[in-house]
Parts: sequence; C-alpha cells; structure tokens
Amino acid sequence: MTENFQFTLSATDGMARRGQIDTPRGEIRTPAFMPVGTAGTVKAMYPEQVRETGADIVLGNTYHLMLRPGAERVARLGGLHEFMDWQRPILTDSGGFQVMSLAKLRKLDENGVTFKSHIDGSSHSLTPERSIEIQKLLDSDIIMQLDECVSLPAEHNELERAMELSIRWAERSKKAFDNAKGRALFGIVQGGDNAVLRARSASGLTDIGFDGYAVGGLAVGEPQEVMFRVLDETTPQLPSDKPRYLMGVGKPDDLLGAVGRGIDMFDCVHPTRAGRHGHAYTRFGVVNLKNARHKDDHRPLDEASPNPTARRFSRAYLHHLVRCEEMLGAMILSQINLSYYQELMAGMRNAIENATFVQYCAAVREGWTKGDLPALD
Amino acid sequence: MTENFQFTLSATDGMARRGQIDTPRGEIRTPAFMPVGTAGTVKAMYPEQVRETGADIVLGNTYHLMLRPGAERVARLGGLHEFMDWQRPILTDSGGFQVMSLAKLRKLDENGVTFKSHIDGSSHSLTPERSIEIQKLLDSDIIMQLDECVSLPAEHNELERAMELSIRWAERSKKAFDNAKGRALFGIVQGGDNAVLRARSASGLTDIGFDGYAVGGLAVGEPQEVMFRVLDETTPQLPSDKPRYLMGVGKPDDLLGAVGRGIDMFDCVHPTRAGRHGHAYTRFGVVNLKNARHKDDHRPLDEASPNPTARRFSRAYLHHLVRCEEMLGAMILSQINLSYYQELMAGMRNAIENATFVQYCAAVREGWTKGDLPALD
Ligand SMILES: [Zn+2]
Ligand SMILES: [Zn+2]
Repeated sequence: MTENFQFTLSATDGMARRGQIDTPRGEIRTPAFMPVGTAGTVKAMYPEQVRETGADIVLGNTYHLMLRPGAERVARLGGLHEFMDWQRPILTDSGGFQVMSLAKLRKLDENGVTFKSHIDGSSHSLTPERSIEIQKLLDSDIIMQLDECVSLPAEHNELERAMELSIRWAERSKKAFDNAKGRALFGIVQGGDNAVLRARSASGLTDIGFDGYAVGGLAVGEPQEVMFRVLDETTPQLPSDKPRYLMGVGKPDDLLGAVGRGIDMFDCVHPTRAGRHGHAYTRFGVVNLKNARHKDDHRPLDEASPNPTARRFSRAYLHHLVRCEEMLGAMILSQINLSYYQELMAGMRNAIENATFVQYCAAVREGWTKGDLPALD
Repeated sequence: MTENFQFTLSATDGMARRGQIDTPRGEIRTPAFMPVGTAGTVKAMYPEQVRETGADIVLGNTYHLMLRPGAERVARLGGLHEFMDWQRPILTDSGGFQVMSLAKLRKLDENGVTFKSHIDGSSHSLTPERSIEIQKLLDSDIIMQLDECVSLPAEHNELERAMELSIRWAERSKKAFDNAKGRALFGIVQGGDNAVLRARSASGLTDIGFDGYAVGGLAVGEPQEVMFRVLDETTPQLPSDKPRYLMGVGKPDDLLGAVGRGIDMFDCVHPTRAGRHGHAYTRFGVVNLKNARHKDDHRPLDEASPNPTARRFSRAYLHHLVRCEEMLGAMILSQINLSYYQELMAGMRNAIENATFVQYCAAVREGWTKGDLPALD
C-alpha cells in the first residue's frame, strides 16, 4: 500500500513489460485485465468472485453511473467501492465513449458534449471538467480524461480534428484533476490509424504530463492487424515509466499481441458478455456450449483447468443451463471466462519475468489452434 | 445417515410437529422448506449457496426435466444430484401439476395424460408408471405419485372424479415404485375444499400405504382461510407417524399456519420468483426494493439479520440493481429470500422443541405487522 499512485517496472521481455501499480486501495499487477462493472456490478458475479478470479481492479462506466444512480448519489452513499462492496482499485472511464455509442441527440462542440439519456431521454452534458468531477464523486482511483473517439475507417481531417480536440480536453482535464491526492489521471492518445497523428497526440499528452497513457480509438471496427500496427507505431512514443492502457480490448489473442507491443492494462466486456451468450473461453479456444455436441457430454469444460468451476460441472449441464436460459449458466460462464482471462494475464506476467514471453504466447496459441476436445461418440 | 427412508418425530406443540427424515443422502429437519430447482437449478443460486441458506432438500420438476434435458439423459449423466451438483436429498414431483398448468393439447383419461411440450410442441405422455420410472431415472429420493389436481372453486362431481382417479393412480404408482430401496414414495390427498372427499382420499391412500402423505389441490386459487380449513379437516385423517407435505405452499404466513396445522414439508417457487421481481422477505415483512423510497437509503435491508448478505449491501444498491435489471439483484434477493424462509423454518423447529410455537408465530407476525423501517427523511 502507498499513499500515492506509483508505477514500477520489474522486468521486460522484448516490448512486453512486467510491473506493478501501487495505489492507496491496493496493488495492480501488470499486465492487468480489468473486468467491466458497467452499472456498479460485474454482471452475474459477486464482488468476491471477481476478486477470486485474480482481478486487482475493475472498471466502472461513468456514462451509466451518472445516469443511474447518479454521481452525487453514489458520493452520498460513500463512493462506488462502498456502493458495490469492491474495496480494491477502480478505474472509471470518462463517459465520452458511451455517450457516442449509446446516447441520443448527441451534440459535440469545443466545450463538451450534450446528449439525452438512452434510458429515459433526460438531458445531460459532459465537459472535461464535469467528467473529472463525476469520477471524483464516484471516488475513482484511476480517472480518464474526456476525449473524442472516432470509429474506423475515418477521414484524415476528422481524425486530426478529434485528436486535437482531445489534447485541448486533456489540458482542461489535467487542470480540473488538480493533482487529487491518491488518485491517478490518464490521458488518452487518439489519431486513429494514422501514425503521424498518433505521434502528435502522444507528444502533446506527454508535454501535459499524466500518470498513465491510454491508447484510445482502437477496437472500434478495424482489423486486428491495423490495431497491432498502430500499437507498434504508438507505444514507443509513450513514456516508458508510466502505465499504458489499451481501452476496450479485447479477445484473448488481442491481449497476447498487445502485451507483446508494450501494453500494461486492458478492459473489455467481452468475457462476461460471451459468458451470457453461452461461450466459454478455455485453453482449447472458445467453446460454444449452445452446440448440441455437448448435450450428452459428461466431461467438464476443462478437467485440467486451475479454476475449480471449470472442472466442476459437466458440459452437458452447462449446455442444459444455456439452452434453458437459466441465470446460473450466465453466472458460471462469466466466472469461467473472467478466470481464464486472469489465468492468461498471470501466465504472461510469469513469462515476462522468465523472459519466455514469446514461447508462452506460442504455446497458448497452439492450444487454441488444436481446438476443443474431440466430441464424444 | 441410513440405508432406508425413516421419519422420526421428536416433539409436538399443539398440532405442530418437530421431526427428522433420514435418507441415504442425508437428513431432512422438519418442518422443512424445499427450494424449487425447476430445471435442475434453484434459479440464480449456486448449489452451495442453497445449502448455506439452511436447505436440507430441494425439489426438481419432473415435467421440466423430462422435456429438457430428458430423464434418460439425466440417468446416463449420473442422475440429478450429479448433474446439478447437489448431493443431498431431492424430491421430485410427478409432473402432473405442470402438465395441467403449462403443457398444450392435454388429454387425460384413465390411463394417464398425453400432452404437447410448451417448449417445442413435441408429444409426450405421462402415466402413473412412467412418472415413477422418470423419477427413478432422475434418481429422486422422494418420489410423488401422479395425481389429478383440480383448480378451486370446482364442482363436487369434478372433485370427486379427480380424487378417485388419483387413488387408482396411487395404487398403480405404489406397484410401479416396487419398494425401491433407499427411496420414498408419497401419496397425494385430493378432494378440493370438501371435507368428506378429503377424508375418503386420505383413507384410500392410507389403505395402500405410503412413506409420506402430501396434501395436493391447495394453493390453487382459494383464499388462505379455505386452505387452513381444509388442513384442519385433513391432517387429522393422516397417519401421525409419516411426514405430511403441503405442495406448492407458500408465503411465510402460510407456512406458520400450516405448520400449526400439522404439516411437515413445503415447497414453493415464491421466494426465488419474488427475489427476481425485486421483493425481499424480512422480519419487517415484504420489502419492495423497486420502490423509490430506497433510492438514497444507505441502510442494509436488515442490520440484525443472521444472514450476512442481508446485512451487506445498502438498500440503495439493491434498489439500483433491481432498477437496472442486473442479474446480481436477482442473485442477492433470491439468496436473501431463501435464507429468510429457512430462518423461519429453523425458528419454528426451535419453538416446537420449546413448546413456544404459538408465541413464536405471534412474535414473527407482530414484526410483519409493524412493517418496514421508517423511510429516511
Ligand atoms: Zn471490448
Ligand atoms: Zn408456490
């Protein structure tokens, strides 16, 4: 524990980095995957189950929480940690990305963005200053600047405009953040798939100075190779002594590739959402439990998994729960997927320490390529 | 543990009975409440959570399980205990009640009932013999005879016909059951709200001889006072050395009233269903967490509850989860409601031992009448 936010690198292997973020609410081992607790709950999971999967930190969505239950209300109730009974670090996003993807009647100008709630149509606005204020009300440990994220593919002019606006918003965010004690503020690199714009964004943010740097504007529709190319061009532009966070990513293979390109932190709804849709992540790759091949399969999902839940129930039972749309199916598969993600992060951290990162990734990918157990006769 | 099914009464207080059913899979403390695991899962609960609430036994629905995943499949997979990972006793119903309430194109005759699945329209039939066979395939510990249950109010002729058919089906069930070792077979008293028919039913079943006697055909639309009158007339007709099971009941107040009339076992979907709808059962009565009065309420549901989950989260958080339709809300409230039901059963068992049953019920009812905590200003 520490009174202040602090990042320490302990090993590197190629571009891959092994480190630790110390915060007043506990340590975050990096590379880290942050489960998403959109509305103050990692869906279908008790907080202690989230911790048991190996998560050091969860993400909360400012957009959702400002609408329901409201940031001032969460503050009156003791903050988000108290509200959801998660006592470890929380990172909150700025709300901007969800405004652009979920809200109605959005209007963006230099000052910020106004919009109507997708829930009840009520009017709201979000400026860089208000986003910081909300995140402080939520009692977030890692606060993100408000930025403008553009979907790919996009015109150069549009990418440049949004990137430059995001830098001006970064400056306003830094000022509003006001070196809040025990909290961190991350800037967000924009610039789409353009290396020159990414470099200008990174340099502009570095001049302002942040506790960490996020790569935004990826995982917005582009192929994985574009994302990896942008990371190849961008992470070398970022200060090596600060954590780097790739926002909204991703699938397991994205995590391997991005850690190998110098990323330290991730968040994504994918593992829990996939679980609610009957998909299980395993060392065999994705197993679709809706598939009739599991109907009579008495075998567990993975008898060699370090996660007891993945060894506990038969595939036939999981298939049954998914087919019957029983909540327990979503509960078990969310747990299994988050556990697998954390197993992968722990495996990468260990491999970086032992300078075997490339071999570790190759072995994991080989398992996925081999695929699932042969079906029973 | 015992190789055989065995019922022992240890205390009585008025008509209320304290006892224990020993089965090869463990003991059942009576009066007992059995959570309902319709499709092989007590909805939104892990099996160990169900046990932790204090449940000694759960109920499985033959109708649901015969359609999905199918009785023969469950048998191939090692039986229902193995399938759902609940190693303690399971009671299965006969399937008849759900056929009558859920299935389509039902046709009932002397032999049994044919119907089409409400899920996929496939054709099925259920006879007394097939119902026993299915329940044995599921590896049920307590098997129920197939009966015909008539909704109230109903014509005398109709009640009489269904009651007499149920006795003939009871005889066939007993024969098909064939004294299966380690299992129990319960007969079901029918006769609606008619005391003479109930007495004839009880006497017919007692002549055949069962390991336990259920009171069926109640909780089918009649007022509570009718149900209590029928119990007053029926339980004295049943052998005192066998457990008595009131099927499909009920709300907490029903449980107090029925135990006071000599009932030993209950099942009901109500506590879990109410939990999924945002209702919490507490010593204050029912608390509707959807209500806006909880929006800013930092207090737990019940700070003096013996259930840690009822003390853990604020009412404001529960309100938020329910409003956002988050699964965690259903998970927590199902747990809280099943815990409260088991707390009530444990309280009644204790009170019967101490010959304070009437006082216990009065104190519990007084708490409900006082109602919830005053709202915060
Ligand atoms: Zn994502
Ligand atoms: Zn019921």
